[in-house]
Amino acid sequence: MMTENSQDIPGLVCPIPLAHDDKIVLGHGSGGKMSQDLIEKTFFPPLDNPILRAANDAGIAVIDLPQKNGEKVTCRLAVSTDSHVVNPLFFPGGDIGRLAICGTVNDIAMMGAQPSYLTASFILEEGLNIEILQNVLESMKDSAAESAIQIIAGDTKVVEKGKADSLYINTAGVGILPPGVNIHGANSQPGDIVILSGTIGDHGIAVLEARGDLGFKSSITSDIAPLNGIVQDILKITDQIHTMRDPTRGGLATSLNEVAKQSQVCIEIYETKIPINPAVLSACEMLGFDPLYIANEGKFLLIVPEVFVEPILQKMKSHRYGQDAVIIGRVRANPKGRVLMRTSIGTTRVVDILSGELLPRIC
Amino acid sequence: MMTENSQDIPGLVCPIPLAHDDKIVLGHGSGGKMSQDLIEKTFFPPLDNPILRAANDAGIAVIDLPQKNGEKVTCRLAVSTDSHVVNPLFFPGGDIGRLAICGTVNDIAMMGAQPSYLTASFILEEGLNIEILQNVLESMKDSAAESAIQIIAGDTKVVEKGKADSLYINTAGVGILPPGVNIHGANSQPGDIVILSGTIGDHGIAVLEARGDLGFKSSITSDIAPLNGIVQDILKITDQIHTMRDPTRGGLATSLNEVAKQSQVCIEIYETKIPINPAVLSACEMLGFDPLYIANEGKFLLIVPEVFVEPILQKMKSHRYGQDAVIIGRVRANPKGRVLMRTSIGTTRVVDILSGELLPRIC
Repeated sequence: MMTENSQDIPGLVCPIPLAHDDKIVLGHGSGGKMSQDLIEKTFFPPLDNPILRAANDAGIAVIDLPQKNGEKVTCRLAVSTDSHVVNPLFFPGGDIGRLAICGTVNDIAMMGAQPSYLTASFILEEGLNIEILQNVLESMKDSAAESAIQIIAGDTKVVEKGKADSLYINTAGVGILPPGVNIHGANSQPGDIVILSGTIGDHGIAVLEARGDLGFKSSITSDIAPLNGIVQDILKITDQIHTMRDPTRGGLATSLNEVAKQSQVCIEIYETKIPINPAVLSACEMLGFDPLYIANEGKFLLIVPEVFVEPILQKMKSHRYGQDAVIIGRVRANPKGRVLMRTSIGTTRVVDILSGELLPRIC
Repeated sequence: MMTENSQDIPGLVCPIPLAHDDKIVLGHGSGGKMSQDLIEKTFFPPLDNPILRAANDAGIAVIDLPQKNGEKVTCRLAVSTDSHVVNPLFFPGGDIGRLAICGTVNDIAMMGAQPSYLTASFILEEGLNIEILQNVLESMKDSAAESAIQIIAGDTKVVEKGKADSLYINTAGVGILPPGVNIHGANSQPGDIVILSGTIGDHGIAVLEARGDLGFKSSITSDIAPLNGIVQDILKITDQIHTMRDPTRGGLATSLNEVAKQSQVCIEIYETKIPINPAVLSACEMLGFDPLYIANEGKFLLIVPEVFVEPILQKMKSHRYGQDAVIIGRVRANPKGRVLMRTSIGTTRVVDILSGELLPRIC
C-alpha cells in the first residue's frame, strides 16, 4: 500500500499503515518522522529537560566532584541507552548480542567520549533455548572485548510464552567526555565537509535476507562494528569535530535531516559519491527501497571544518572500519533545515526524513 | 503442584515447574535460586569481571580523571539497570512507570550513592493505546521529581502485536559514590544489627490483587517509593553502614541469604519483630504464601554496627518511608552463609533462598 506521506521519498514504498493518533503502530519505532512525533508529543512533555531535548546519540551528564582541598572537579559523562529487538536474533555478519554492545558503544563514541562501562538487561521469553542465549552471550563477550568495555551491572526478567519474541536486550552505558570535546548535532556550520565512513544499507538488507524476505541468496553481511576505536584515532588528530552520528534506524537520510534541523543549515550531498555495495543496490532496486533510508550499524558521519578533512580521511582509510571513507557532501547556509541531493543526472532533489516504517525490528 | 524443592520453604506452594536444563522457564526470573543458577552458569562465564561478580544492587565503576595540573582525580560511580515487565501495568499504589524510576533509584541508593541521572528505554507493543503510555509517563515524571533525578537519554522500540505485553520499560542509572562510603553485601560482620525499614509483602500482594488473583477485595497498596532521600539522611549520621539492600524479587528471605553468603556470616532474625500488615498476612495465609518471599519495592535492610543503631532508627522513624523501621535481627559468626529465624513459638528454623517462582512478573 502506498501511503500519503511516502510520496515524499522517491523510491520508498511503505507497506505499513501510518499514523493512528491513539494507538502505537510499527511506524512509531522507525526512527523517522513518526518516532520523532511520538517523542515530541508524548515523551517530551512529561520528561523534558535540556539534556534530553539536545537529542544527540547520548545525553551529557555534568557532575561536580568536590575535592578535599575545597576545589571542585567537573566531570562530563556521555550516557546512552538502547533496547534491541532485532528479528531474527542471528543474521549474516552479526546477531542481537553484537548489536546490543555496538549500538550503545557507538552512541557514546559519537559524542567523542570513550565508552568504558555498559549495563545489560535481558527480557527472556519462557521456552527460549538456553543454548541460544549462550550463543548470544558469547557474541557479547567478543564484541565487549573488541570495544574494550566491561559489563558491570545486569538484570534478567522472564515473561510468559507469547509475551516477547525469544529475547530482547537493553544496554546502557557511560563514557568520559574529554575536556574540550564538544561534538553535537547542532554544531555543524556552513563550509563544513561531510564525510561518510563507508557503504550504506548493508545491515538492513542483511537482516532482510535472514528473514527470507529478499527472495534470493546474496553475499550481503551486516556492517555491525564498534566505532570507538576509529573515533579515538580521529580525535588524536583534532577534537574540533563539529558533528558525528551513526545512521542507524532511518538511515543516512534521517541522520542528515536531524543534523540539518538541529544546526539550522542545509546539507548538500552528492549521489554519485555515496558508497553502496552493488549487491545492496540491486536488492534495494528489486524491493523498491531507497538505500538512503536503510539502517547501518557500523558506519558514521563526520561533519568537520575543511582544514581537517585530509588528515582525518587518511587516518580513517587506514582503519578496518573506515577503509571506504569518503567525502559525500558539504554544509551550506540555506535552505536551513534541509538536505539536498545532487543527483547523478545533475538535478537537485530534497531528501526528506523517513516518514513511515521501512523495516520493522531492524535493531 | 508441589515441587521437590519447595519443601525447603514451609508455607510456600510453588505452582510453576522448576528447572529444565535446556529451556528458560518462569522460575529463571524469580530473583531466587533459579535466577542465581542461570546467572552463575550462563551469564557469568562469558561476561565475568570482578565488578559484575560483586553482585551488589549496582556495579561500581572507578574512573580516573586526569587534570590539567597532572594530578589525577578518581571518581566512583554506582551504575545499575533494571527491565520492568510488571503485569498489570497499573495496580494499587503504583504502576510500571513509578516502578521503573524507583527500581533503579533504589539500586543506586543501596550502594550509598546519590542517583542523579537515569536513562529510559521503552519496548512498545503495536496497538498499545497512547493514552496508557501517557499515563505511565506522567507517573514517571512525578517519581522522577520526587527522586530528584533527570532522565537524560531514551530509546523507543515497537514490536508487532503479540511480541510483548503492552509495554516494557528499562531504566539504567548512575550515581556518584561519596569518598569513604563502602557499602557492600560482603561487609556485614558478627555483632552487627539488622534493621528493616517497614512492613514486608505489600507490593507483591497489591499486584496479585490487581490481577484479580486474590479472590477478594483488600486495602493493600504497593509500597513503591524512592529510597534515596532517606538513605542520604542516614548517611549524614554515619557512612559506616556495612550493608544495605532492598528486598525486591525473592523478598526479605532471599536478600538476607545473599548477604549471609557474601559476608560469610549467619543472620539471625526474630519472627515476632518482622512488621507485616494484617491484610498482607491474611492474604498470604489464605494463598499459602510465606511473606518472607514476597517482593517489596519501597523497603530496605540496613546492617550496621550496634553503636549507630539508635540514631539511625530515630532518623528513619522521622521519615515518610521509614516510620515503621525496626530491629529484626543480628549478625552472628556461625553457621556461615545461613539465615536462621527464631520463631514465635521459640524454635529456630533455617530460612532458605526462594527456590522456584512465586509470583511471575511482579516487577
